[in-house]
Amino acid sequence: MPSGLITILTDFGTADAYAGIMKGIILSIDPEARIVDLSHAVPPQQVRVGALLLRNVVPYFPPGTIHLVVVDPGVGSARRPILIETGAGLLVGPDNGVLAPAATWMGRKTIRLISNQELFRQPVSQTFHGRDIFAPVAAHLSRGVATAACGPELADMVEIALPEPDESASAIAGEVVYADHFGNLVTNIRLSAAWRFPPQRVLVSIKGTPVTGPVTAYTAVAEGSALAIEGSWGTLEIAVRNGNAAQVFAAGPGTPVTVVLESREA
Amino acid sequence: MPSGLITILTDFGTADAYAGIMKGIILSIDPEARIVDLSHAVPPQQVRVGALLLRNVVPYFPPGTIHLVVVDPGVGSARRPILIETGAGLLVGPDNGVLAPAATWMGRKTIRLISNQELFRQPVSQTFHGRDIFAPVAAHLSRGVATAACGPELADMVEIALPEPDESASAIAGEVVYADHFGNLVTNIRLSAAWRFPPQRVLVSIKGTPVTGPVTAYTAVAEGSALAIEGSWGTLEIAVRNGNAAQVFAAGPGTPVTVVLESREA
Amino acid sequence: MPSGLITILTDFGTADAYAGIMKGIILSIDPEARIVDLSHAVPPQQVRVGALLLRNVVPYFPPGTIHLVVVDPGVGSARRPILIETGAGLLVGPDNGVLAPAATWMGRKTIRLISNQELFRQPVSQTFHGRDIFAPVAAHLSRGVATAACGPELADMVEIALPEPDESASAIAGEVVYADHFGNLVTNIRLSAAWRFPPQRVLVSIKGTPVTGPVTAYTAVAEGSALAIEGSWGTLEIAVRNGNAAQVFAAGPGTPVTVVLESREA
Repeated sequence: MPSGLITILTDFGTADAYAGIMKGIILSIDPEARIVDLSHAVPPQQVRVGALLLRNVVPYFPPGTIHLVVVDPGVGSARRPILIETGAGLLVGPDNGVLAPAATWMGRKTIRLISNQELFRQPVSQTFHGRDIFAPVAAHLSRGVATAACGPELADMVEIALPEPDESASAIAGEVVYADHFGNLVTNIRLSAAWRFPPQRVLVSIKGTPVTGPVTAYTAVAEGSALAIEGSWGTLEIAVRNGNAAQVFAAGPGTPVTVVLESREA
Repeated sequence: MPSGLITILTDFGTADAYAGIMKGIILSIDPEARIVDLSHAVPPQQVRVGALLLRNVVPYFPPGTIHLVVVDPGVGSARRPILIETGAGLLVGPDNGVLAPAATWMGRKTIRLISNQELFRQPVSQTFHGRDIFAPVAAHLSRGVATAACGPELADMVEIALPEPDESASAIAGEVVYADHFGNLVTNIRLSAAWRFPPQRVLVSIKGTPVTGPVTAYTAVAEGSALAIEGSWGTLEIAVRNGNAAQVFAAGPGTPVTVVLESREA
Repeated sequence: MPSGLITILTDFGTADAYAGIMKGIILSIDPEARIVDLSHAVPPQQVRVGALLLRNVVPYFPPGTIHLVVVDPGVGSARRPILIETGAGLLVGPDNGVLAPAATWMGRKTIRLISNQELFRQPVSQTFHGRDIFAPVAAHLSRGVATAACGPELADMVEIALPEPDESASAIAGEVVYADHFGNLVTNIRLSAAWRFPPQRVLVSIKGTPVTGPVTAYTAVAEGSALAIEGSWGTLEIAVRNGNAAQVFAAGPGTPVTVVLESREA
């Protein structure tokens, strides 16, 4: 059952009113829809960044939410428009991998080709399927149109591989996957329960430079000092207290971060 | 009949909470209003840009929508606050031309001076009629106050001329009217049906440089290559695949774009 | 009684979907909540700027509005999460002063520690109490949970001192407190009724440079000229007509602005 809630994630920016146009389309079809902007600041055409943001956001929305994603460099080409049914809601967008990590987290059930032209805005343009296909389909789903009415099941979809850390018993070699607005550097390193209850000593470094932590609050270090902390994405983050770690370390996606475990007895 | 939907288009930016203040005013008067942000990134005082964006957005909203526009360099002067009734909804804003192209598209019926002080927030400031006049009037209209209650009909309003291309049988000399977030260059050149079904050859150039197309998808050219395509505004656009045409061509509003038709037999 | 309206003010920016996550949390708990973004562009960790913006916005929202503020450099430390009950609505956020000026304007009644873990999202992270504490508590309040259920009353809270001007009978020495999106310089100087109805002459200067005014409209001076005007914050503003005063005067918070009163007889 749809919850009546539709989120929108795009690389459109907010200046040109393209997201506003999608909302006009949605509310023309389902006047009761409630719409939440996730972000319109995915860097243009950066499918991987869109996939990461979406994956990080979907856990916080109620069951039945429809997530509408338009990061779509292949618009107008043979890339397929798809709908994914999951245990926690629906995903609507282009088949370029942007939906894949979120679909996995949400419990992917079926993938459908969006092919029912009756649900589209006509004529369908060559450049803005967010307006002509994805927004109207999301709105029809929100109103209660059955997923099966959108199109036939597909056997597969484009997957996207997010980088995984290299783990051994005493060390992890990971990397930054996202730099946020504060310059905090989100990594792909997950702190295990064991690490949080040492006798072991945990040494974190970024680009070879050691940082304090993992700490339990930014205020554990002096202003301007670097630290490692378990961040809101559930993974290790490198931050600078009241500063910008991305700038201080000239770091971003791909920057290596390592964690070494030392026995206290050593 | 109002749809209960109010859009907002301003040059306020989003940092200062001025748009949030307008929403507080609206929801104080009509708690049931649904509000959609179109854009708050019209460049400061750029009435023409606001007019273009509004004109491009209004077709996608349901009948009865109230479009509230505040790009208002003349605030506090003798410029008139106006309300325009159309076949597709209401327009509320300053009489400086910003509403004019949208009004024409929507089927302009009557223009009214907004003069009924009882609908205003008091005291009316000298600098923020968005808060004190336009937002409260839009909210009262949304609640069902009659347009006639806002003020008397006017015989005319400030018009704004959008640039028209020079067309001959075999060529069009047009120009860029808008550069969007992706650096795509929206022109004022409309592709006729005849052009889309050639035997003719269509040659597009910007600043004298030929570009590929019109193509039917960005992916028709290599990454980084320039192309012409019929864009989502319904006119010819110049783009660079996965790149930024505004930067590549150092182009923006006013940059000349030409289209030449060649007979295939030639 | 809550109005069902929740505003959000943060320093999160809009790129990372952190505000969207808070909305997902809120709508999971109270599907009927209406959410208004005030601003997400408070400069990172700038508690004073957040306090100023909030104070300027709260007068325009209906009674019972819940204002949720997350400008929170002390997250994870001993700083307290608080709830303030006022005559005009509720304030939810960190106890670092960001809520204080708004609370005073709204008629502060009681301050409560937010301590009822049953209202929190679990597990509570070390870095994002906006998601784990403040948003869920605001949503529970919106649904009708009693303020007393959030936690016990507190005797005091962190206050924040906004700069006050130096006033004598014939002069005011004030300062810029905020530079807005237009580059308009909001000061802390309030024009008294007496000043608005002279026989006296009012001389305004910024950084020692005289400007025209106070005028009653930006259009009272030529394009590009500086002026003083009573702005929408209710205080004197320095602006440049169709220009950017912050840039022209290289001015911002703390820049001195003076007003001198001269008798016309002199």
